[in-house]
Amino acid sequence: MTASLDSTHDPALQSWVESANEATTDFPIQNLPFGRFRQREQRGAGPWRIGIAIGDQVLDLRAARIIDTDDIVSLLAAPAAERRALRRLVSEGLRLGSGRETVWRQALTAVADVVLGLPCDIRNYTDFYTGIHHARAIGRLFRPDQPLLPNYQWVPIGYHGRASSLLASGANFRRPHGQIKPADCDAPVLSPTARLDFELELGFIVGQGNELGHPVNIEAAEERIFGLTLLNDWSARDIQSWEYQPLGPFLSKNFASTLSPWMVTLEALAPFRLPFTRPAGDPAPLSYLDCAADHEAGSIDIRLQAWIETETMRRAGMPPELLSESNACHAYWTMAQLVAHHTMNGCNLQAGDLLGSGTLSGPASDEGGSLIELTAGGRNPIRLRDGESRTFLLDGDAILFKAICEKPGARRIGFGECRGMVGHLPQAFAAAGYPHDG
Amino acid sequence: MTASLDSTHDPALQSWVESANEATTDFPIQNLPFGRFRQREQRGAGPWRIGIAIGDQVLDLRAARIIDTDDIVSLLAAPAAERRALRRLVSEGLRLGSGRETVWRQALTAVADVVLGLPCDIRNYTDFYTGIHHARAIGRLFRPDQPLLPNYQWVPIGYHGRASSLLASGANFRRPHGQIKPADCDAPVLSPTARLDFELELGFIVGQGNELGHPVNIEAAEERIFGLTLLNDWSARDIQSWEYQPLGPFLSKNFASTLSPWMVTLEALAPFRLPFTRPAGDPAPLSYLDCAADHEAGSIDIRLQAWIETETMRRAGMPPELLSESNACHAYWTMAQLVAHHTMNGCNLQAGDLLGSGTLSGPASDEGGSLIELTAGGRNPIRLRDGESRTFLLDGDAILFKAICEKPGARRIGFGECRGMVGHLPQAFAAAGYPHDG
Repeated sequence: MTASLDSTHDPALQSWVESANEATTDFPIQNLPFGRFRQREQRGAGPWRIGIAIGDQVLDLRAARIIDTDDIVSLLAAPAAERRALRRLVSEGLRLGSGRETVWRQALTAVADVVLGLPCDIRNYTDFYTGIHHARAIGRLFRPDQPLLPNYQWVPIGYHGRASSLLASGANFRRPHGQIKPADCDAPVLSPTARLDFELELGFIVGQGNELGHPVNIEAAEERIFGLTLLNDWSARDIQSWEYQPLGPFLSKNFASTLSPWMVTLEALAPFRLPFTRPAGDPAPLSYLDCAADHEAGSIDIRLQAWIETETMRRAGMPPELLSESNACHAYWTMAQLVAHHTMNGCNLQAGDLLGSGTLSGPASDEGGSLIELTAGGRNPIRLRDGESRTFLLDGDAILFKAICEKPGARRIGFGECRGMVGHLPQAFAAAGYPHDG
Repeated sequence: MTASLDSTHDPALQSWVESANEATTDFPIQNLPFGRFRQREQRGAGPWRIGIAIGDQVLDLRAARIIDTDDIVSLLAAPAAERRALRRLVSEGLRLGSGRETVWRQALTAVADVVLGLPCDIRNYTDFYTGIHHARAIGRLFRPDQPLLPNYQWVPIGYHGRASSLLASGANFRRPHGQIKPADCDAPVLSPTARLDFELELGFIVGQGNELGHPVNIEAAEERIFGLTLLNDWSARDIQSWEYQPLGPFLSKNFASTLSPWMVTLEALAPFRLPFTRPAGDPAPLSYLDCAADHEAGSIDIRLQAWIETETMRRAGMPPELLSESNACHAYWTMAQLVAHHTMNGCNLQAGDLLGSGTLSGPASDEGGSLIELTAGGRNPIRLRDGESRTFLLDGDAILFKAICEKPGARRIGFGECRGMVGHLPQAFAAAGYPHDG
């Protein structure tokens, strides 16, 4: 299903955009992720424009006359062959020596001068639960007698999330209040959450959708994903444990979820695919979830990192500190399986829908994709370099996600940054340019 | 919070639209619900137009020069005072003897000549669980040891539904396939659902929204609801019981939900409000969910009916048969409580969002709002008048919901019809004008 490697993946390719050739950039010419941006001074006014990240610049696709629309959904919904052709065109035009340099250079803007938005207008957001190590760890805390439920290895468990409160990276949010029931009380109280957590996820953006009543066959399912982002599914654990039975998480999640701005395409990720295998002894997936392409390359080798930046670190000019590192290959279900399962009952996916992977923890204790895992349910505080400690997040804490793909023989690519901060002071929001509290 | 009664509620009011004065119409001049329509021959082309139902006619608000937009969201988002002014204007113009008759008559179309759509473009759909009799009955089947969970009387339980598969009344859908685990097997199988059910709900359409991070106070919460519709939350019980732990229902619900076309406004419902009380001994709601206006009139007296029309009935020319009758006053939580709770954590509601009430069963065994209740989990089939019997729905079965408000001293109003049919034959879909299978 995945595009096989072609000249756009050649690790030796260089761009006439000099910053794209630096070893540390997330956005060399082999990446070419899509996103939406506005000039900084236009903030809040005018439509989003469609751009591709290249080094420390954004290429305005319409200004460069590569496309003639500002509607990213029309790009997402295009057949895979068209989007591969677009990738090749952009790749060739950005190469060192391309005749397009003169014209396209005028369509470049420094990322530093733009505001990046949500990568598209997301109408439907589904969050899955593909991280089996996370499911086991959380299950152990919420249901000690039965950490992994009997359906987990059969059903790609998922549920609907809230689209209206999806935030672009960089937007901050208020600590949510909610009903919390102390273990030693008969009645709940209304209180700000004391157990605010992050969840380290990938977001899969749907490209071509399907009509209601028409499931997508597993063999054709992966191609329905346009690209990947980072997703922070902020969670209030104390609200969650009281509210989640029997219909699932609600107010413990829907106050905010943060998405990184750049959709890294499946084409860009092609060099980093891995065979998808299940541990010996696990049941084989039902046939509607089983395909040869997944066995060959259903998994992806993406290093995932969660960093913390506290108010104290910011004041002291200290850099963020790494909290955890994991890998997307720990997912128990593939993208193709998620699409095939989601549509099996006829449910219609639409271009621009977001599918969350669920928290992608690794098996080791320092590979937890959330604080509730890293602190064993809040029992073991994390000691930070600057002397602070954390069980859950305090106001002023920012969480940053990063993701990197690298391997011998391929050019390293990255996802950029997914950043959000919790705060309670209106000034803090205004200073951060938070649109809802300016 | 609700508008007090005014001249628009006068039961003696007559309209120059003759059919609006018939005793049996759902849409007398005291109702005036909003919806969207197209001329039948324009089906699938052109924008939806905004209309008000009056008798067996639709008044095209733009053609009558009452508004100058086809964007119903701008109407929904208007402050309550504006929408009350619009109601008065329309009420006065439709009254017998109004000078507007000549002009407005040209903006009337027979309902029989139009296609009615979803009442608005719904982006976020939340389904609550306010029917305590339903929660107890379902709980008894899914968790015999603990039918009503400890949080039920404290938390207005809700979860996110799927917006993309919301269907306008009259659209049919395919029987969903999904993973089903027979009790006597170790592994699930993929199969069409054998336990397809309906759920009798009200839909609350959000008017003015709230900014992220800014909860709506309970005292101002009800006014955020623009109007009410009927909602059928179709459910596949066998898929549901296998998939729903731990994150809630997903594929068992998101294949289709059907909404009636007319939003009956809170103003129209004002004569039918009832005090909201809880059974003696139940805990009082936390203060963010408690307000004087709810004690006075938080409940609504709406008779709710579910009817079945089988393929056999249609062929024999028999009318549909009443399956169940209940009342909206059985809801354990009020509209104001749902809005206050949903936004308490800062979650942003948007104009046009849909909140489902959850299944509004009554306490008696023939007041169940779903087949799983009416048949005691499928154990007691329902015997139909024509000799057929049902536990769950068969292909060709249509379910119709109706709702009526009536009481001495007020003009009876209704909600129109919420109709959907399950089928498997493409011809059946095409004959019914199902847009996805034409």
